[in-house]
Amino acid sequence: MKGRVTADDVAKKAGVSQSTVSRVLNNYPFIKEGTREKVLEAINELGFTRDEIARSLVEKKTRTIGLIIGNISNPFFAESAGVIISKAQKEKYDVIIYNTNHDDYQLEKAISTLIGKRVDGILAAAVNRNNARVKQLYENGFPIVLYNSRLDDSEVNSISLDNKKGAMLAVEHLAELGHKKIAYIAGPSKYLTVYERYVAYREALQKYGLSYDSELVFKEELTHDKVVTFTKRILSRPDRPSAIFAMSDEMALAVMDGVAGLGLKIPEDVSIIGFDNINIAANSYIGLTTISQQKEKMALLALDNLIQLIESDQKDVQPVHVIIEPELLIRRTTGVCNGS
Amino acid sequence: MKGRVTADDVAKKAGVSQSTVSRVLNNYPFIKEGTREKVLEAINELGFTRDEIARSLVEKKTRTIGLIIGNISNPFFAESAGVIISKAQKEKYDVIIYNTNHDDYQLEKAISTLIGKRVDGILAAAVNRNNARVKQLYENGFPIVLYNSRLDDSEVNSISLDNKKGAMLAVEHLAELGHKKIAYIAGPSKYLTVYERYVAYREALQKYGLSYDSELVFKEELTHDKVVTFTKRILSRPDRPSAIFAMSDEMALAVMDGVAGLGLKIPEDVSIIGFDNINIAANSYIGLTTISQQKEKMALLALDNLIQLIESDQKDVQPVHVIIEPELLIRRTTGVCNGS
Repeated sequence: MKGRVTADDVAKKAGVSQSTVSRVLNNYPFIKEGTREKVLEAINELGFTRDEIARSLVEKKTRTIGLIIGNISNPFFAESAGVIISKAQKEKYDVIIYNTNHDDYQLEKAISTLIGKRVDGILAAAVNRNNARVKQLYENGFPIVLYNSRLDDSEVNSISLDNKKGAMLAVEHLAELGHKKIAYIAGPSKYLTVYERYVAYREALQKYGLSYDSELVFKEELTHDKVVTFTKRILSRPDRPSAIFAMSDEMALAVMDGVAGLGLKIPEDVSIIGFDNINIAANSYIGLTTISQQKEKMALLALDNLIQLIESDQKDVQPVHVIIEPELLIRRTTGVCNGS
Repeated sequence: MKGRVTADDVAKKAGVSQSTVSRVLNNYPFIKEGTREKVLEAINELGFTRDEIARSLVEKKTRTIGLIIGNISNPFFAESAGVIISKAQKEKYDVIIYNTNHDDYQLEKAISTLIGKRVDGILAAAVNRNNARVKQLYENGFPIVLYNSRLDDSEVNSISLDNKKGAMLAVEHLAELGHKKIAYIAGPSKYLTVYERYVAYREALQKYGLSYDSELVFKEELTHDKVVTFTKRILSRPDRPSAIFAMSDEMALAVMDGVAGLGLKIPEDVSIIGFDNINIAANSYIGLTTISQQKEKMALLALDNLIQLIESDQKDVQPVHVIIEPELLIRRTTGVCNGS
């Protein structure tokens, strides 16, 4: 991996001197048209804009980090962001925060805006698995670390859970309690981490000889109201599931909303297991059984690695890939299956 | 109110020309020592640093807003921040977010850092009532809007709830259900909005002929664990309270944690009412009775007013003071008093 793009990189790529690059960017007269074009092409091929390179010539580091998350009102993101912001403040970095609302276009815009603001690096927590822009930034040496996200076939630095193992633990826990019909709130599979949980859910069903029923799997965009509606629908079937696994605690709470709305009891009528271990999961009134992502550890590792990338001036830094161990936390929302 | 500080303001105050101000800031030689001092004094008296003025001479607006909150892991702040960030993105402003962890020193530092980053304006949600720095910024014409915060004796723009009425509604609701011993999670009174709720709690008790018992009032720093411990302690008294009012939903959830930890039932054994109406309060599994702060409305009004201040180039803009109406939302955590 290279360091952050510099006029030197551009000069080498274009086969000109650094001062020529500088003259082109500052619109000096008396430059041959061919030379100007070579420099601008090199900048383009390196994946930067002319403005960015111009600024890199004159500007120092900004001690500002960009933080891209799905939605700050999801406690997983809010609590992780809290950890990141507090630690960043201690390290004298400021954090510009972007909500993508899980929209790919907003993610692209967030990246462009943050680069335009000259952030020293980016932490991104909700990146679709095939995102070309993130891959390009990484390959160009821009400091970027993904957390709770990974790309397909790419070396981009990432801190993420062993999601497959996490989802396996969840389904195994339910299967061992005797549950045979286990519904799953899966969400869309554009995020690799989310997709891996779905694959593991299917594999775990198979391992325990349980059949897969696509009508018990929610694959749409995850909103609270849609998940409440889905929960109520599947629990109104004569052959209703006795357990529901949700790919996030936020969505497990939506499931609980739906269950309580029908007047059913947790866990007597329906067992529920989440994923994340947000703070409220440990509240005795809720007692949500869940898979811990060790969110503080994940967030701090992501930030520490980003700061190292920013502050290391070495080239050829090795990519970072940390896989965090999931942990099953059994609380009050799961119990022995009372039905079929 | 004046516009943002400019070299012109400094020049007038110092009785010199704008270009003299510029020459002082750029360390030109051949300036009389007395003149240099006059300029630096004027800058100081206007409450800015030399660096800030220097930058204001050369820099345009940054389209960046500073957002100062108590703690992003409190859903009231996280959900308000979500509304602000999403709307700001639409208006093409970026948001730098600062957690103060309710620490006055962190608040001062947040302000200095944000000003140093040349934000166009600041939204602040957790400002102690006597904060001199905020008052000075406002008086110097820097765009700043408080939300869910106000200062004593100051005109600083603010969007806040009628907190007195909100707390009155809460205690009245409990009194009308027959509760006579009503505990209160008050928190420290350095925030005017929080203090007003405490005063109204006492006034409401008096109005309903209920006695005030300081042992039933929690006035320390608000942390989840401390409030759980306090709740368990007061509910273990032989003459335990039959209802608990918390100054935020986050703390009402801590109270519920304590109640459930003792194996008591809500609302049969203890009624609980919160304040804020965070998203989870409406979850059927929780059903927290609360006082709505209309947080979306509050957040959007704060942002809209800030953007207007930033974008208006007029001087003498009138200060903005919006008081939002509270609303009692009765859900499942409050019921008729079964005890004494």
